[in-house]
Amino acid sequence: MDLKTVAVILFDDFETLDAMGPVEVFGCLPGCQLRFLSRYGGEITSSQGVVVKTENAIGQPDAILIPGGQGTRALTQDADFLRWLSVFIETVPLCMTVCTGSALLAGTDLLNGHNATSNKRAFSWVTSLNHKVHWQPRARWVRDGKFYTSSGISAGIDMALQVVVDYHGREQAVDIAHRMEYVWNDAPGNDPFAVEW
Amino acid sequence: MDLKTVAVILFDDFETLDAMGPVEVFGCLPGCQLRFLSRYGGEITSSQGVVVKTENAIGQPDAILIPGGQGTRALTQDADFLRWLSVFIETVPLCMTVCTGSALLAGTDLLNGHNATSNKRAFSWVTSLNHKVHWQPRARWVRDGKFYTSSGISAGIDMALQVVVDYHGREQAVDIAHRMEYVWNDAPGNDPFAVEW
Repeated sequence: MDLKTVAVILFDDFETLDAMGPVEVFGCLPGCQLRFLSRYGGEITSSQGVVVKTENAIGQPDAILIPGGQGTRALTQDADFLRWLSVFIETVPLCMTVCTGSALLAGTDLLNGHNATSNKRAFSWVTSLNHKVHWQPRARWVRDGKFYTSSGISAGIDMALQVVVDYHGREQAVDIAHRMEYVWNDAPGNDPFAVEW
Repeated sequence: MDLKTVAVILFDDFETLDAMGPVEVFGCLPGCQLRFLSRYGGEITSSQGVVVKTENAIGQPDAILIPGGQGTRALTQDADFLRWLSVFIETVPLCMTVCTGSALLAGTDLLNGHNATSNKRAFSWVTSLNHKVHWQPRARWVRDGKFYTSSGISAGIDMALQVVVDYHGREQAVDIAHRMEYVWNDAPGNDPFAVEW
C-alpha cells in the first residue's frame, strides 16, 4: 500500500517537532499528502506558539500520526476525546505516535497487549496510565502490527523514515534523509536516551 | 543578551522543518517567545501543506530566523520583498538562516563579504546569486558576526542549539537537546553532506 494521505491529529499544546518532523518526512514522499485534523477544527496552537489551521473531518486516510506534548496530560483524562480518537485509530491501517502521543493511544485501550515506547523523560507517567501495554524502556521506536510508537520528539523523524522503508522501500527513505541533510538513526534498538525502568 | 523574542519569517512554500526545527529549540528555551511574521500577515502554507497563522508586524525582536524552501526561488527575484526583509535584518542583533534561507539573506546584499553556507543540494543555485559572499561548501553551519547560516533542513536544529550555547551557555543547550532526545552534531565543521565545489 502506498501512503497517499497521512492525517496529523493536533490539539492545543502539542509539541511542535513531534508533528513537524514526520510531516517533513512524509511531505517529501512523492504523492503523499498531509492533512491536519483536530476535534473541532480551526486554529490549534503548539506549546512553542505555532498556530496551525486544522480541519474537523477528512476522508479515510492511509495513516494517522499522533504527536505528544503538554496537551496530552488533560486529554488522557478526556473520555470524549479518546472515543473520538478511537474511531480514527480503528479505521486506519497504520497508526503512528511520537513522544507522549503514545499516552493518548494507550488511553484508547487499543494498544493493550502490544509492545510500545514513549518519551523517556515522561516514561513513568505514560507507563502508569496503562499496565496492559508492554512498554519498552530501550527503543528509538517500536513497531507492533499497525502501531508504530516512537521515543521523544526528534525520534519521530527516525520512525517516520522507517515507515517510508516499510511502505516505499529503503532507497526512498535514504533519499529523503539525504534531502533533509539528516543523519538518520535507522536502528530501532539504538536508543541514546533509554531509561532504567 | 538573553533571547526573549525570536521572529520567524514565513512565506508560501517554506520548508516545514527549516522553520520548525529551530522553533522547537527556541520554544524549549525558558523565557523565549516565538513570533511568526510574513510580508502581509495571514495564513502561510509550507511546501508540506502546513498552514500557519502569521502577523504582518511585530515589535523589535532579539533575533530573526529565515527558513528556506521552494518559495525562495521567486522571492530572490522580488525586490520589494528583499527591501522589506532588509529592514528587519538591519535592525536585529542576530539573524539566522536555514537551508536556502541564505539565498534570501544574500539577496539583500547584507551578507556581502561574510562567510556563509546553505543547502548542499541547492548549493550551485544559491552561490550563483551573489559572488560577494564567501560561501563555505563544507560546514554544518557558519557564524560570521551577527549572521548564522546553516546547511539544509535539519542542520538548522544544530545551528539553533549553537545559538543557545552562545547566548545562554552550553548547559542550557545540552539540556534542550536531551529533552528533544536529539543527537546533536555540535561541531560546525562536521558536515556529512558537504559538496565538492
